[in-house]
Amino acid sequence: MLESLKELVCKYNLYLPKYGLVTWTSGNVSARDPDTNLVVIKPSGVMYDDLTPDKMVVVDMDGNIVEGNLKPSTDTLTHLYVYKHMPHINAVVHTHSNYATAFAALGQPIKVYLTAIADEFGCEIPCGPYAQIGGEDIGKVIVEYIGESPAILLQNHGVFTIGRTVDEAVKAAVMVEDVAKTVFIAKMMGEPIEIPPEEVKRAHERYVTKYGQK
Amino acid sequence: MLESLKELVCKYNLYLPKYGLVTWTSGNVSARDPDTNLVVIKPSGVMYDDLTPDKMVVVDMDGNIVEGNLKPSTDTLTHLYVYKHMPHINAVVHTHSNYATAFAALGQPIKVYLTAIADEFGCEIPCGPYAQIGGEDIGKVIVEYIGESPAILLQNHGVFTIGRTVDEAVKAAVMVEDVAKTVFIAKMMGEPIEIPPEEVKRAHERYVTKYGQK
Amino acid sequence: MLESLKELVCKYNLYLPKYGLVTWTSGNVSARDPDTNLVVIKPSGVMYDDLTPDKMVVVDMDGNIVEGNLKPSTDTLTHLYVYKHMPHINAVVHTHSNYATAFAALGQPIKVYLTAIADEFGCEIPCGPYAQIGGEDIGKVIVEYIGESPAILLQNHGVFTIGRTVDEAVKAAVMVEDVAKTVFIAKMMGEPIEIPPEEVKRAHERYVTKYGQK
Amino acid sequence: MLESLKELVCKYNLYLPKYGLVTWTSGNVSARDPDTNLVVIKPSGVMYDDLTPDKMVVVDMDGNIVEGNLKPSTDTLTHLYVYKHMPHINAVVHTHSNYATAFAALGQPIKVYLTAIADEFGCEIPCGPYAQIGGEDIGKVIVEYIGESPAILLQNHGVFTIGRTVDEAVKAAVMVEDVAKTVFIAKMMGEPIEIPPEEVKRAHERYVTKYGQK
Repeated sequence: MLESLKELVCKYNLYLPKYGLVTWTSGNVSARDPDTNLVVIKPSGVMYDDLTPDKMVVVDMDGNIVEGNLKPSTDTLTHLYVYKHMPHINAVVHTHSNYATAFAALGQPIKVYLTAIADEFGCEIPCGPYAQIGGEDIGKVIVEYIGESPAILLQNHGVFTIGRTVDEAVKAAVMVEDVAKTVFIAKMMGEPIEIPPEEVKRAHERYVTKYGQK
Repeated sequence: MLESLKELVCKYNLYLPKYGLVTWTSGNVSARDPDTNLVVIKPSGVMYDDLTPDKMVVVDMDGNIVEGNLKPSTDTLTHLYVYKHMPHINAVVHTHSNYATAFAALGQPIKVYLTAIADEFGCEIPCGPYAQIGGEDIGKVIVEYIGESPAILLQNHGVFTIGRTVDEAVKAAVMVEDVAKTVFIAKMMGEPIEIPPEEVKRAHERYVTKYGQK
Repeated sequence: MLESLKELVCKYNLYLPKYGLVTWTSGNVSARDPDTNLVVIKPSGVMYDDLTPDKMVVVDMDGNIVEGNLKPSTDTLTHLYVYKHMPHINAVVHTHSNYATAFAALGQPIKVYLTAIADEFGCEIPCGPYAQIGGEDIGKVIVEYIGESPAILLQNHGVFTIGRTVDEAVKAAVMVEDVAKTVFIAKMMGEPIEIPPEEVKRAHERYVTKYGQK
Repeated sequence: MLESLKELVCKYNLYLPKYGLVTWTSGNVSARDPDTNLVVIKPSGVMYDDLTPDKMVVVDMDGNIVEGNLKPSTDTLTHLYVYKHMPHINAVVHTHSNYATAFAALGQPIKVYLTAIADEFGCEIPCGPYAQIGGEDIGKVIVEYIGESPAILLQNHGVFTIGRTVDEAVKAAVMVEDVAKTVFIAKMMGEPIEIPPEEVKRAHERYVTKYGQK
């Protein structure tokens, strides 16, 4: 079941090591099938080199395994909480990517110092408070604190991103690490210049309407 | 039309991820055909892994699509403004490479702390003021502020480089990131030693006349 | 003899360059065969690209070569000391991975600033005092200072990790560098928030019992 | 002529991009044939992807091209000066590797903060004064300032390393960047602990006599 979605989720899970966002077995990508409300997610603790579409796990909204021989990601309840409370979201990504997670270790957001942040995120990337892994606590923080951004930092922990499509959510995970790296380097050398909020808004609207092929 | 130039522009666009200068779909390379004054440029928002020569877009100096099924780069008008006002320039490159963009986030130039900067750039790499993406504003900043350097930083944004050939412009984009990284590391540990202007000039002249196979 | 263990040790030695933990010929992985108490270890000073299972060296607990045409790692006596004094440990890994070794150059532990540290290590990653390479001195420091952590930093030197399996020990070596990088970046920007000890304990127990497929 | 040496020099030139020490066409490796006193060196300004053994240039001790269709490296006279004044040296390597060159931008040596520095270099890695590229000036600085180290930093410029074999010289270039990176990270977080000179000497002697397969 959901064969094409399992292929897609597998492919985008493999983007996490390709873009340097994860280490060993950390990180995960899931996607929701809007027709059935079933969720396809990475199995727990499996090496990325060993991932294949048939190893993806299909769960329902209560976390029951509907298909798959492996245990789903330890973050499954987090993903499900997001899907339940954000009906327009069909994909969730989690990483501990180094530069973004460093901001999370400080409990600090990433401010809009770059046009790339204005374009992709449309506002500062928020940092939510500490929450325990495994249950619904992290999901609650995401839903409460993410605002208009497709990405959120979790204090002491890492990054969660969301999207209408898996491509959107993975792109947000890639971009948050990229801008976190640039902002880190800039902060080391001085005080980066913030882009004014009205200009951030204008740039973001231009980007979402004009950029790309749609 | 312009098949060999489309192959060249595609090949040099692929150098951007190869040299670690771009993330996801950001960045672009264009080249002008001096005979027809037509410009070949990367399509907007297409993944680098999917780029092929036939996906390059051919535009005229007014930005009209002359050939190609895809929308051209969102930075097309920037590239065209440069070509119109710098007739000796036949290639333009744009990236958000991390170290160079960090200087841009501070609105700071990269001074001549390294023989590699003297050799390749011949002067400090300037940083132009903030300008909006999509129209001619960035082009105007490039033309006004780039001076004798083949590279310029744009405040809060990234890097633009120019060249008589696409090889020259892409080399400048690769080198600006490389020297930005080294200068960043040096600045973290102390105050780097500037090379005196007359020695910069001498070294640059030697480099452009003696280095390489021409 | 021990053909499958030699294959395993060779494969996991090759993970060291794959995960960016070693340079040129530095670093090594060994594993103990619990049945015979023999140890399979990387040969000294051989390039990783040239490693094959048949180049692995088999030594007994006194360091005598039982099989193999090459000299074993210069750190062999260190590995053997650990095996003799930690009977539940069947694998030892050594690297000079950059970020972790930087903490070692300062003689500083890595505190629990990240859920990834709580999960994987269960406590701060300690730093033992300086000890000379080649004899049993480093082994003594490891046994005395490593505590409950699967990883220890050695002052001025690098990282040693241990595990019940070679997979565990190499995972610890990969994770210590990953968290050292993130903690470094965070420390550059401010004072990272420590996770309270009781929460570290709770998170670690959850991780070791719930994470993965066992 | 010197076909096997040309293959060796080509192979070791390709280690420079493999180990991340060079960008675009920068950097070069040469080796001297002790029998004929001829030197094989990388051609100037040729992309690493295009290097083949037959593109290596053979020069005599006066810099005359003895074989080869390309211009030799712009640093050829530097290499030759070293060979003339250090008869036991048969290989010279030059890079602008980022971390080591950052120390050079400050005119600072790399002190012995790591066992890897004691082992490989046996003393601090010195930094010589600024010297002009292209003539014999850099060669004079190398010979005067390198001392017992196989590597030297050149102020504002980069790294030169030497060896009895090309393997030794390239290893030194790889290791100097690796330890420069670790020392940089450590210096950012505090004051690294220096290893006392007598211990450096002891460790170095052990390493050169015990490490590896000879």
